[in-house]
Amino acid sequence: GTHLARVVALHIKCPPGVLQDLELAAIFVSDAQYNRNICFEASPAVVRLYLLYNHWVAKVLLYLFILVNLSLAFFEEPAVVALPTWATMLVELLCLLVFTLRLVHYARVIPRDKFWKDPKNICIIVILLLTLVDMMVYGALTASGCKAVRWSRVLRPLLLVNVTEGRQLRRAFRSIRNALPQIFYVFLLFIFSLLIFSLMALKLLGKRDLKTLEGEPYFTNYLSIVFDLYVLVTTANSPDVMMPAYNFSFVFAIFFIVYILVNTYIFMSVFLAVVYNTYKKHLKEEVRQLVRAKRQKMSRAFLVLQEQAQEGGEPVVTQASWNQLVRMVRPDISDPHRLLLWSVLDSSSQGKAAFVQLADLLNIEVITLKSRPHPLQSLCPALYQSAPSRLLRRLVQHRAFVVLYDLIILVNAVFIGLDEDNPLIAHSEWVFLALYLLEILLKLYVFEPRAFFSRHSFWNWFDTIIVVSALVATVVNSALQSSGGYTSRQILDIVFILRVLRLIRVVDSIKRFRTIINTLIRIGPAILTFGQLIIVVYYVFAVVGMELFKDKVRFFEADSSDPAKAYCGNALLRGTAFAHFNYCKNNFNNIVSSFVLLVELTVVNQEEMDGGLVNAMETMDNELGSGPSDGAGPAPPHLMFKIASKRYRTVDALLQRMFESDLDPEDLDESSDPEAQSSPSFSNPSFSSA
Amino acid sequence: GTHLARVVALHIKCPPGVLQDLELAAIFVSDAQYNRNICFEASPAVVRLYLLYNHWVAKVLLYLFILVNLSLAFFEEPAVVALPTWATMLVELLCLLVFTLRLVHYARVIPRDKFWKDPKNICIIVILLLTLVDMMVYGALTASGCKAVRWSRVLRPLLLVNVTEGRQLRRAFRSIRNALPQIFYVFLLFIFSLLIFSLMALKLLGKRDLKTLEGEPYFTNYLSIVFDLYVLVTTANSPDVMMPAYNFSFVFAIFFIVYILVNTYIFMSVFLAVVYNTYKKHLKEEVRQLVRAKRQKMSRAFLVLQEQAQEGGEPVVTQASWNQLVRMVRPDISDPHRLLLWSVLDSSSQGKAAFVQLADLLNIEVITLKSRPHPLQSLCPALYQSAPSRLLRRLVQHRAFVVLYDLIILVNAVFIGLDEDNPLIAHSEWVFLALYLLEILLKLYVFEPRAFFSRHSFWNWFDTIIVVSALVATVVNSALQSSGGYTSRQILDIVFILRVLRLIRVVDSIKRFRTIINTLIRIGPAILTFGQLIIVVYYVFAVVGMELFKDKVRFFEADSSDPAKAYCGNALLRGTAFAHFNYCKNNFNNIVSSFVLLVELTVVNQEEMDGGLVNAMETMDNELGSGPSDGAGPAPPHLMFKIASKRYRTVDALLQRMFESDLDPEDLDESSDPEAQSSPSFSNPSFSSA
Repeated sequence: GTHLARVVALHIKCPPGVLQDLELAAIFVSDAQYNRNICFEASPAVVRLYLLYNHWVAKVLLYLFILVNLSLAFFEEPAVVALPTWATMLVELLCLLVFTLRLVHYARVIPRDKFWKDPKNICIIVILLLTLVDMMVYGALTASGCKAVRWSRVLRPLLLVNVTEGRQLRRAFRSIRNALPQIFYVFLLFIFSLLIFSLMALKLLGKRDLKTLEGEPYFTNYLSIVFDLYVLVTTANSPDVMMPAYNFSFVFAIFFIVYILVNTYIFMSVFLAVVYNTYKKHLKEEVRQLVRAKRQKMSRAFLVLQEQAQEGGEPVVTQASWNQLVRMVRPDISDPHRLLLWSVLDSSSQGKAAFVQLADLLNIEVITLKSRPHPLQSLCPALYQSAPSRLLRRLVQHRAFVVLYDLIILVNAVFIGLDEDNPLIAHSEWVFLALYLLEILLKLYVFEPRAFFSRHSFWNWFDTIIVVSALVATVVNSALQSSGGYTSRQILDIVFILRVLRLIRVVDSIKRFRTIINTLIRIGPAILTFGQLIIVVYYVFAVVGMELFKDKVRFFEADSSDPAKAYCGNALLRGTAFAHFNYCKNNFNNIVSSFVLLVELTVVNQEEMDGGLVNAMETMDNELGSGPSDGAGPAPPHLMFKIASKRYRTVDALLQRMFESDLDPEDLDESSDPEAQSSPSFSNPSFSSA
Repeated sequence: GTHLARVVALHIKCPPGVLQDLELAAIFVSDAQYNRNICFEASPAVVRLYLLYNHWVAKVLLYLFILVNLSLAFFEEPAVVALPTWATMLVELLCLLVFTLRLVHYARVIPRDKFWKDPKNICIIVILLLTLVDMMVYGALTASGCKAVRWSRVLRPLLLVNVTEGRQLRRAFRSIRNALPQIFYVFLLFIFSLLIFSLMALKLLGKRDLKTLEGEPYFTNYLSIVFDLYVLVTTANSPDVMMPAYNFSFVFAIFFIVYILVNTYIFMSVFLAVVYNTYKKHLKEEVRQLVRAKRQKMSRAFLVLQEQAQEGGEPVVTQASWNQLVRMVRPDISDPHRLLLWSVLDSSSQGKAAFVQLADLLNIEVITLKSRPHPLQSLCPALYQSAPSRLLRRLVQHRAFVVLYDLIILVNAVFIGLDEDNPLIAHSEWVFLALYLLEILLKLYVFEPRAFFSRHSFWNWFDTIIVVSALVATVVNSALQSSGGYTSRQILDIVFILRVLRLIRVVDSIKRFRTIINTLIRIGPAILTFGQLIIVVYYVFAVVGMELFKDKVRFFEADSSDPAKAYCGNALLRGTAFAHFNYCKNNFNNIVSSFVLLVELTVVNQEEMDGGLVNAMETMDNELGSGPSDGAGPAPPHLMFKIASKRYRTVDALLQRMFESDLDPEDLDESSDPEAQSSPSFSNPSFSSA
């Protein structure tokens, strides 16, 4: 096409090719919608490869193999379930092959020089090569009977960061890295304050011949004072560390109070404030770049599709090509929904400014509320519209119906708490199950089933799955019990868990609670990114810990009579608090124990973790009061739309929304100067700007 | 005056009187500058009383008597230093008299109906009456030999909240109270989650016959599970509470990890986010009202002073009356400084919009940098300008001089750390003192003394005070030592503290550190408000605790041979961890122990305290990079001004600055409609809107 040549010429690195205008525009819009920043050549062959690369099946497969690769730690030495080395090696080789293929695919899509300039590609290549080398060395060494260490396992979680789809994760790591210099200065000042306070403690308390509870000299050694006061910041040894001095004179309590005030409250708050501010600042900058790149892509799509409406007028995109475009980008959007989108855009103007909003509009989840008739009404309208049926439907839709079932849930909670060995209690379970099943059936009778089980009816799905699973598990349990008198503990556990989970439903009845839960669900994706980050860090530490400490501490079953049980199989632990408190299972003997241990360590030192969430939840409060939906205005009368404004299809959209009020209008400008379009901010801003 | 009649007529409640226009305008400006919201009658007598009421001596006296009243707890039963009851009663009566006089003074200033409508006045009256009644009842009961409780002592800290000057404190309490409903819902949801998890734990673990470390049944009682899991949220019993289940099977570790994730991380973060957001929202609303009231007062001052420049033109305030006004409001401002202020205002326009800014401009601390010649130059210019003198001055001003003294401080730190019984070390102290004294003298030789000891040179003052005190203390100590061979431990402690404090000076040399410290100093007033709030809460708890628990736990000196020492004098504590860890001094036996104990309890449960500071420090980060001063443009060439933009004269100014970007321009409008000027937001917005 004629526009295409222009567009491609702008995009300097990508040589022109022959391609349908519309197809190219659709790709640009889709890239803008999902904030993909991959520079591809505009030739038909490459575009086909590019579409394949972005296909959801390819992505799911990639993540599946990353998961398989990570979970190899369960089966490798030290293993939870031991598998022969050749088996895990074979699976790992398969994973490496898949990663290589994915990388080659990526290399075919983007221009060669871009590929080699991108640090994340280099990272993946290095990881793959190192893993191969390590596997060969390990194989050779173990074959010759030497001791070998599979050190490349530390690199596995890094793949999660460096794949194209790990954008959120890279952003999180980058924001943390950017906050480090600021934190470093506060940390230095904190250390300085710690040293000064320790020196003062040494001078004031060291010469007074005080004794600790264990009868050792108190505060006489500078380094041990520094350590004690450092631990005091985490409040772990408060008030024990100050008791000898306080018992001597209450004046010294002032010293410790001032210390805690300065170092625990003020410094920790400054830490939190600095982390929060720099993290937020850098995130804002990233979102700004993201929005700019999005606008650029949308302008490009506009350039492809634009037509001159009248001589000298602004170029526009006609409704016909707009419809075709949206149909290509989102085939699942219904005709009326598309009409709605067009009318939203049309209300301003048909020009570029309106067109550019399309990517954001597509990210707003619009639920089409079709007032479809109930299938029973079509099947036997006479029965469905009869007076008893109408009364029943009114009853079910009444507020009292909800209250009645909340009461049933409460009674159920009491029954669960009572002893289930009582036959009356045991049989009551069947009554409750029947009541819950009846509720679902009644609701299905009243509400249109497809609306009841729509994608956004979280609680309906939750109810149905829990009740049906509980029914199945209870039936299986009873069958086992009555047949052989044998009760499977696992099935019983599942039954119990399902019973208790059913009680959660009561939350949905109270509007305030629903709002809080919805907010938590809404920020779920952001928390998931954080979870990935935690997994990457934990995995690295767990693998290193396993290599260093495996079998240093051993756990003995409760019925074991081994004398080593008293000191966890390690003579060094004889008589320590660790062995006394029976902490033997807190070890690095396999990946599961390592993860549990790392979680325990995190929990004890949990000071600094809350800052990130505050950020993500800043908008929560403003929305706690308002209703969950806003009706959209100009829609054909036979249809109702509901903007699911609380949910965001992507984390990027959530972030953009969060910083909307903070971004200047100039930042959102797509730098309409054509020369500026190949600015460095566009080409893979995720890592190349690092 | 003619304008006055208009102004007073607007101010409906205050009847007109005869008064100098300028005087009234000056009061309005001063009220706006300090955000005072006291409605006074505009008669000369009342205005005189009003000025007296706002005089700093009156305020200092008031706070002094509040302090005396609060510190009576040191001398009353249970006392730190016991005084006879009649003495403390007499002092308390004196305090009550002062508070009554202050209240009567206030009642004379503001209109009668306003006085009785203001809850804070009612509060003070009720507190005073209750205290009197309590004193009489207590006196009568003790005289007749009955046991009596001085319950009105709980009310004492409430005076701090209810005096006119406790505006910040009332605001903080109000913001907390406003955040409560939101927090309540999150708390309910948290409790619900706790109950559900406990029920699940009971069902999953109760029947497995597990034992705790002490051999007791594990997780079999629902209420004790709820308690254990509640404590787990504070991570105080982690990982002990999960070890029996984890030892049984690693699957149960997942239960505890999910629990900690949901209740410690997610719920505590939601708590923090909700507290932060609602606190911020309400504070913003308060600041908005504050700014609106300020603009109203400035408009009123403008109405008093305005003159018609030309027919049909905008009314203006002439430079002459403006000068007189500023001279009345701030007599300490120099002529060039006033000229600077005028030129800043003049640059926009002479109208109302510019005039209204005056209150904010007066709150900006401008340091006048007068390039005064050094007194030695005037005394003996030949010597001061000689070549050696010039060289010396260049040396002292050189960067190397600072580095040299930083090195000396570091060496000093090492010497302090070493054993001071060594005579070499003991004598080195004199060398270091001499070096520090030399430094101050050299600096005084180079820099103009009045500039060196200006009000904003925090570190110069710090240095001089520390070094001179250390010199005095060391001399006294040596004199005592050499005269009688007797060393006072107290003086030695002071010497040590001063020596260590001297080391802090090194912080000032590193720019990054200086910025952080300056930020902390800047938000100091906001932290002080928080400190007052803490004292109010602690005092109430301490007094209640003393009445309930005094002498329940007793502390025995280390050399005591009383057998009760092993269980803190309370048989109930025999064999408990409390007695074992020697916590006997953690009791409610007097006000000091009570405060220390409350601090300890706060430190152990310190989860939720950091939120407020983040808020106050939000702007800190942006300023970490920029230089500490900005030169102001249009000033006469012989003078330099430095805007001390980092410091705020009042907490209100800091708050206004914090929310500047958040406030809409409409919010800052002083509602120029004259009818709206007596809106409810003006008349004592601090408490009457409650």
